[in-house]
Amino acid sequence: MKAQGYVVHSAGAQLEPFEFDRRQLRPRDVALEIYYSGICHSDIHQAREEWDPAIFPMVPGHEIVGKVIEIGSQVSKFKVGELIGVGVFIDSCRNCSSCMAGLEQYCLEDMTGTYNSIERDGKTIAFGGYSNRFVIDEDYAVHVPTNLELAGVAPLMCAGITLYSPLKHWQAGPGKKVAIMGLGGLGHMGVKFSHALGAETTVFSHSPEKEADAKAMGADHFVLTSNASELKKHRKSFDLILNTISAQIDLEPYLQALKLDGTLVVIGLPGKPYEVAAGTLLGQRRSLAGSMIGGVSELQEMLNFCSTHNILCDVEVIKVDYINQAFDRTVASDVKYRFVIDAKTF
Amino acid sequence: MKAQGYVVHSAGAQLEPFEFDRRQLRPRDVALEIYYSGICHSDIHQAREEWDPAIFPMVPGHEIVGKVIEIGSQVSKFKVGELIGVGVFIDSCRNCSSCMAGLEQYCLEDMTGTYNSIERDGKTIAFGGYSNRFVIDEDYAVHVPTNLELAGVAPLMCAGITLYSPLKHWQAGPGKKVAIMGLGGLGHMGVKFSHALGAETTVFSHSPEKEADAKAMGADHFVLTSNASELKKHRKSFDLILNTISAQIDLEPYLQALKLDGTLVVIGLPGKPYEVAAGTLLGQRRSLAGSMIGGVSELQEMLNFCSTHNILCDVEVIKVDYINQAFDRTVASDVKYRFVIDAKTF
Repeated sequence: MKAQGYVVHSAGAQLEPFEFDRRQLRPRDVALEIYYSGICHSDIHQAREEWDPAIFPMVPGHEIVGKVIEIGSQVSKFKVGELIGVGVFIDSCRNCSSCMAGLEQYCLEDMTGTYNSIERDGKTIAFGGYSNRFVIDEDYAVHVPTNLELAGVAPLMCAGITLYSPLKHWQAGPGKKVAIMGLGGLGHMGVKFSHALGAETTVFSHSPEKEADAKAMGADHFVLTSNASELKKHRKSFDLILNTISAQIDLEPYLQALKLDGTLVVIGLPGKPYEVAAGTLLGQRRSLAGSMIGGVSELQEMLNFCSTHNILCDVEVIKVDYINQAFDRTVASDVKYRFVIDAKTF
Repeated sequence: MKAQGYVVHSAGAQLEPFEFDRRQLRPRDVALEIYYSGICHSDIHQAREEWDPAIFPMVPGHEIVGKVIEIGSQVSKFKVGELIGVGVFIDSCRNCSSCMAGLEQYCLEDMTGTYNSIERDGKTIAFGGYSNRFVIDEDYAVHVPTNLELAGVAPLMCAGITLYSPLKHWQAGPGKKVAIMGLGGLGHMGVKFSHALGAETTVFSHSPEKEADAKAMGADHFVLTSNASELKKHRKSFDLILNTISAQIDLEPYLQALKLDGTLVVIGLPGKPYEVAAGTLLGQRRSLAGSMIGGVSELQEMLNFCSTHNILCDVEVIKVDYINQAFDRTVASDVKYRFVIDAKTF
């Protein structure tokens, strides 16, 4: 199946138009016409090879929403014409304890990424969502509720689940005090979910101009972290803090803001290790934890939750020829709050 | 009440004999004749002022076991002649959420340490257990079972509870894989408790000569960490790892030994922060946590557990005039596994 997309041919190169083939449908495959594809900060890290060695040519994109246009002979989960979502992975081993528990993102043989990965045949480069067509095994796609505005759904597939999963795992809800560090593409989803789950929600941000947005999204409190003394007022206060800040920062004052048995969850990958003082953890039996997206069943649960609570990602929809500028603006945090490519423009 | 003890007059000075007064009994106070007083590595850190600024003169010691010799007019918990234990703290605010939950060690106004602290009157220096007499509010002391050899009970009051509490909190038990890093005063208690709780127990140690002891104490497995490849064989294996190593080490290979949702708990205070790679936490939703001793009710629970399972600290009983050598040997890890002062020798 022919697909039009955008590609990066080498680390840090500009994205450019690319025509390529998606595989012929296997019995359990679903083909989709992509409607919208979100731009995730991790797309940029990988296209610029800022993390591990990357695989080129690279068609980035793992926040995909579209419509089923064809199904394989044994597909039972989807029908042609239905809305469909694809996230950060397209396959996993299916047999390990993580996969059996529906936690495919923690597959003991490693999940197969939607792009910048080799498929489980050991040779095919996986091309991602910056494209107008996609083919995926039905087990790794989810149903998209029909009452949601689709451009705002696409980034839920990564930015959304990245916040939803730890909020659920660490039991954000009524009676809990939750803080979200940073109000960007990830952080603003954290605010919406935490609020909808019933937790008392605080935003930690160094940008005073974000207070109005934070409150409008459901934050109960806004703490301006550019003033160090503000954060100190909140020592031993929070049950759960989610760090969505991708830059390297000193976690110490945030760890101190955790109350007894509180957990600070990191969900981004800064280049350098964090420094953690043992005494800060000991003092109130605090934890520093990590969380990575969510499994297929939790993706579906999140979309259903979004349908019920009318939660969407705030997006700027762009034509694909704006993509290189959009990369630069994403790095500069100059987007409210996520760029989404209109796939009709490929 | 006159007491004979040993004192440090300034940071790093030798310990020397000291006669001082314990307070007259208040209505809820209990006086005890000390039988045994353990030497904790933290005594040395504080006597040498290796942590925060310390308070001198200092009578160290917070692993105390003895016999009640006098009680105040309103004491109901103890009778004269009963065995009694005192641990790391002698008071707390009694009103905060932590104290109300029986977690006095995490008192929001800070627990009052057994030594190197100012009592809650704001002026009296608290003198610790390197002494033959002690006076304490009954609420902060515990009953010592009568079937245990008392020299081996004293270090349970710190070394014991420091391991027992996190093993219980993070639910070590049948079906769980637990590893103890280091087989010293703390670590050997971790092995005994983990084994008695029914967990599959592994010791991580760089000393091959400790394998026999580890197995005799209940370890199912022994991993020699001086060979880096040995540890790598255990990636994604453990539910719970307790780090009892007081030296600064690289936690990364140990964090990688945690399975999905596993927790590595630090219980010591190395001088420098740990470096923690976010990716290692994210990869399997791992946690790095801290734990600090235990509350009064958990101290009692632990002693009762020790009584049932006949668990004691392995000790070398010394006369008090050996104390300065014992400090040096403790720093050199040249003790199996804890020094205990015979308080008759004060």
